[in-house]
Amino acid sequence: MSVIQQLLQRVWKTITKTTVVATILTSLVATNALAADKIYRLKLAETWGPNFPIFGDATKNMAKMAKEMSNGRLIIRIDSANKHKAPLGIFDMVKSGQYDMGHSGSYYWKGKVPNTLYFTSMPFGMLPTEQYAWFYHGGGMELMEQVYAPHNLLSFPGGNTDTQMGGWFQKEVNTVADLKGLKMRIPGFAGEILAELGAKPTNIAPGELYTSLERRTIDALEWVGPSLDLRMGFHKIAPYYYTGWHEPGTELQFLVNKRKFDSLPKDLQAILTIAMKTAAYDMYTQSKHESGKNWASIQQDYPDVKVKNFPEEVMAALKTANTKLLAKHAEGNPLAAEIQQSQADYIKQVRPWSTISHGAYLNSQAE
Amino acid sequence: MSVIQQLLQRVWKTITKTTVVATILTSLVATNALAADKIYRLKLAETWGPNFPIFGDATKNMAKMAKEMSNGRLIIRIDSANKHKAPLGIFDMVKSGQYDMGHSGSYYWKGKVPNTLYFTSMPFGMLPTEQYAWFYHGGGMELMEQVYAPHNLLSFPGGNTDTQMGGWFQKEVNTVADLKGLKMRIPGFAGEILAELGAKPTNIAPGELYTSLERRTIDALEWVGPSLDLRMGFHKIAPYYYTGWHEPGTELQFLVNKRKFDSLPKDLQAILTIAMKTAAYDMYTQSKHESGKNWASIQQDYPDVKVKNFPEEVMAALKTANTKLLAKHAEGNPLAAEIQQSQADYIKQVRPWSTISHGAYLNSQAE
Repeated sequence: MSVIQQLLQRVWKTITKTTVVATILTSLVATNALAADKIYRLKLAETWGPNFPIFGDATKNMAKMAKEMSNGRLIIRIDSANKHKAPLGIFDMVKSGQYDMGHSGSYYWKGKVPNTLYFTSMPFGMLPTEQYAWFYHGGGMELMEQVYAPHNLLSFPGGNTDTQMGGWFQKEVNTVADLKGLKMRIPGFAGEILAELGAKPTNIAPGELYTSLERRTIDALEWVGPSLDLRMGFHKIAPYYYTGWHEPGTELQFLVNKRKFDSLPKDLQAILTIAMKTAAYDMYTQSKHESGKNWASIQQDYPDVKVKNFPEEVMAALKTANTKLLAKHAEGNPLAAEIQQSQADYIKQVRPWSTISHGAYLNSQAE
Repeated sequence: MSVIQQLLQRVWKTITKTTVVATILTSLVATNALAADKIYRLKLAETWGPNFPIFGDATKNMAKMAKEMSNGRLIIRIDSANKHKAPLGIFDMVKSGQYDMGHSGSYYWKGKVPNTLYFTSMPFGMLPTEQYAWFYHGGGMELMEQVYAPHNLLSFPGGNTDTQMGGWFQKEVNTVADLKGLKMRIPGFAGEILAELGAKPTNIAPGELYTSLERRTIDALEWVGPSLDLRMGFHKIAPYYYTGWHEPGTELQFLVNKRKFDSLPKDLQAILTIAMKTAAYDMYTQSKHESGKNWASIQQDYPDVKVKNFPEEVMAALKTANTKLLAKHAEGNPLAAEIQQSQADYIKQVRPWSTISHGAYLNSQAE
């Protein structure tokens, strides 16, 4: 109850002594005022640790926009992994309502809900803006809703890392045979593809990656791209930086508990939705900037780092393995088949345009 | 005054007959209610006609977001060119306060304020997301503010068309000599560059372009890209579609009267700013989608249309002419020199990254 309402009630009571009438009137005023004044507080759990660059900026940016646009009526508290201790428990915690929101990556849940695999980035898939176009104009959002709605969850694009690099290698990869026995840190679906070709994908804690690569416990690793690779220092110990194929447009994810979302006033629903959308786009812009800046720095300080493309033969073999694995994932899963088809159709439609626009332009400007 | 306030006043008067007290109390309530209920109405003038695709969707999208997020407190009325009759008068009308906002293109004002040239797209300049990164992380927004602030204007990114194509040509361009005497519809700075090489840039009303190209009154024209070229029908009458060089990432513009903006409550300023930013990003996504869809349609129905790149010799000559003209534009204009340097430095930083990420990926995926 605001000061004005209290004052009104007190004066009214004093003058009229008619508390019933006073209560009715002040509650009428209060109803009106409350709709505009009530503060909604949401708790968000993110997969990342505190002050994780770029990814963590996306959640802070989103919460700041929501607060400013709502005049303080929508307050989002962000808990990083050090607080909630469950970096890969975001899906469950938001589904159950322990948290109202999450910031993570859709493909982390593929062991639990296989069709969540398709909404981050797929090998030989879409570039970032191609994928936004698929989400918002090509049926992607509707398919994502079908996958998440049964879990009382809404999922939204959560920020793009830009095209991920193929990784840091100690030795050149010239033939498919060079992949045999290759020990590489590469998690998820891309790891499955490499395993098809005889590589040994391993998972290693981030804190041990540098030492593992330096001591040749592993032969190669992929992380993100220059935006986040620079501070890991891999360029100091590995001579080859391979261009990307496995995550051409990695999009993070905002998760929202659907019941909680539905309980918000319509204007705060709009504010939250648009704050998430804008934070996602903004993160793509920031990733572009940080990767540009950091790659320039690596080139300047470590001019011997060589950028390599996988040979055509290797790319063809990776594609074949990808096609085979996708078919396996779609067996007895009609929705997976539908999502795969939607993505393949969309790439077929948009890619010739990307090639004659950005592709041709970048080729014409290369020195 | 709301129904509740009227009711309160009437009941109060009836019971107490003390109209002075009643007036003080109701005005206290009204003040509180007004801050949250007052409706702010802004008028926006756009350069485009009514229902102009994509560009017009951007303003509607922006106004819709502002209305929903503000719970109806921020209402933006859009006047298209058929209403205000001054498609190229937006700058003046927003500066004077005749309109509160505008949607147009910054480079349209170069005859009036030369340094507005730099905030749409420059020949051999940045791709769309490179340019967003320059705006938001590379100093671009601050430079744009320096150019517009003296005119009581705020300027914001207003939506990207994606990379524009080099245009539709009746004959191939194989040498610089082929540009001599070439009659081409290509306005603005790019036209100046072509004139340096002996071409005859002409300006023709959009409604007459098709006939002019068909009857060979002109030899070539540029419009936008497949997103907007398809409905113009040029692919039916010109065999060559050249890839782009002169507007790699055309960004439209939202203009806001600065005094009007400053008079808005802080939360509505945030809502308006974020609605404009999101509508701009959204338009880029939509342009990608529409160009992909329309280019696929052209390829299917007109398989004889040939995509061509200008030969290296021609590109080199265009670049030389561009450099010469830029130097001329910077003479005695230190801010122009500063903006040019900022853009050149940013391209130098970001482009190697674009080349090893999107460039390498598109090349590896080409068939």
